[in-house]
Amino acid sequence: MRNIALTIEYDGSNYSGWQRQDNSSSIQEEIEKAIYLITGNSVNLIASGRTDSGVHALGQVANYIDSSTIPSDRLKYAINTKLPADISIKNSYEVDKNFNARYDAKRKTYLYIIENIDVKNPLLLRRTMHIRGKVDIDKMVEQSRYLVGTHDFTSFYKIEKNNPKNPTRTIYDLQIKKFNDSIIFIEITADGFLYNMVRIIVGTLVDISKGKIKSDIKSILSAKDRAFAGITAQSSGLYLKNVEY
Amino acid sequence: MRNIALTIEYDGSNYSGWQRQDNSSSIQEEIEKAIYLITGNSVNLIASGRTDSGVHALGQVANYIDSSTIPSDRLKYAINTKLPADISIKNSYEVDKNFNARYDAKRKTYLYIIENIDVKNPLLLRRTMHIRGKVDIDKMVEQSRYLVGTHDFTSFYKIEKNNPKNPTRTIYDLQIKKFNDSIIFIEITADGFLYNMVRIIVGTLVDISKGKIKSDIKSILSAKDRAFAGITAQSSGLYLKNVEY
Repeated sequence: MRNIALTIEYDGSNYSGWQRQDNSSSIQEEIEKAIYLITGNSVNLIASGRTDSGVHALGQVANYIDSSTIPSDRLKYAINTKLPADISIKNSYEVDKNFNARYDAKRKTYLYIIENIDVKNPLLLRRTMHIRGKVDIDKMVEQSRYLVGTHDFTSFYKIEKNNPKNPTRTIYDLQIKKFNDSIIFIEITADGFLYNMVRIIVGTLVDISKGKIKSDIKSILSAKDRAFAGITAQSSGLYLKNVEY
Repeated sequence: MRNIALTIEYDGSNYSGWQRQDNSSSIQEEIEKAIYLITGNSVNLIASGRTDSGVHALGQVANYIDSSTIPSDRLKYAINTKLPADISIKNSYEVDKNFNARYDAKRKTYLYIIENIDVKNPLLLRRTMHIRGKVDIDKMVEQSRYLVGTHDFTSFYKIEKNNPKNPTRTIYDLQIKKFNDSIIFIEITADGFLYNMVRIIVGTLVDISKGKIKSDIKSILSAKDRAFAGITAQSSGLYLKNVEY
């Protein structure tokens, strides 16, 4: 019995999200099915965290207990043969028996891609959030600085039944960069993220930069009220880039 | 009556190609249908050239005779409302009444994207040609230099019924660049391209760099025989980038 970790890339467009659910297809279910077909094991994949419907991953990490004899670095090739084309296992490797992809995650990085152009590129369909009308990147960069550090992010998450008791998170890094004339990359690294936190941060920075919200990040943070922040940016622009342990 | 030119971006994955055909969907047909819905005109779009099934465009150019009263720069917005999400009109503008997108094209640039990595990225599905095993880019660059200039490209095109009588073309520029660790961009500018010419050039450069073909570009050119060149690279990696007039 080995504890196997997988690094996973996926296009989340056609799934209800990471988590297995009744009556809808999930990335977790597809991978568990593929592992069953290869190893005969009914496994329970533990991911670093769920991703929502439409959210993509470049480096999701998940682990499971494997009782097959396939060499750990070959497992990825075997599992990939049974996966749909919009999910790939990039790496498979044995980890310590106590490793837990969810609880041992130290830092996560999300990438958000904005397409800021008059007419959107059909080749980037379901890969970006499209915004018409020039976004003021300088203003976004200036405002984004107030998010870095340890804060109560109550204004920046969606309230749900199972919300965490502690809404304090630490953002280690937040970079906003133009990739070219029309593409803006926003990359955020934190010790963890609250529900919809990246999408609300991006939506709020866009709303501030376009003058739709008059208040600034400082006052939104201190309000501790979701109503003060901006829109929730579309899931299609969001990528779980990597997880550090 | 105005002569209107359109700059068009599309994901060619779900079409039989640019050209209107019976019993299969084409990009030309979709745009002509959208123009009909907006202007009431049954038009005949003349493109700079056909693209094959699965080939994409970032800057295809086509023109047609328009008898509507919609301002030329607003036509793009109107037509886009009637187009499927995988086709976009980037620009619409009035051109001289004698302008012909096919016959007046002076130079065209194609981009080819190779994904050179162990496990392919599902987010790039139908956007690249995936190749396992390191490609020798230095060798590709060295060999590609012999293609630049005016040559008889008989070895580098697919023979068909309507082949041109003159297989001589001039390649003005050919750039091969790593975009990152796994993505290779090949960009070729010429006065025109023979059928499948870019895809056969790319396939041959890859085959030479991997040692699958022992001969070099010089000898393949002088053989004037398709059998001496390499594979035809997949349509999914090919993009008509722009057309100059």
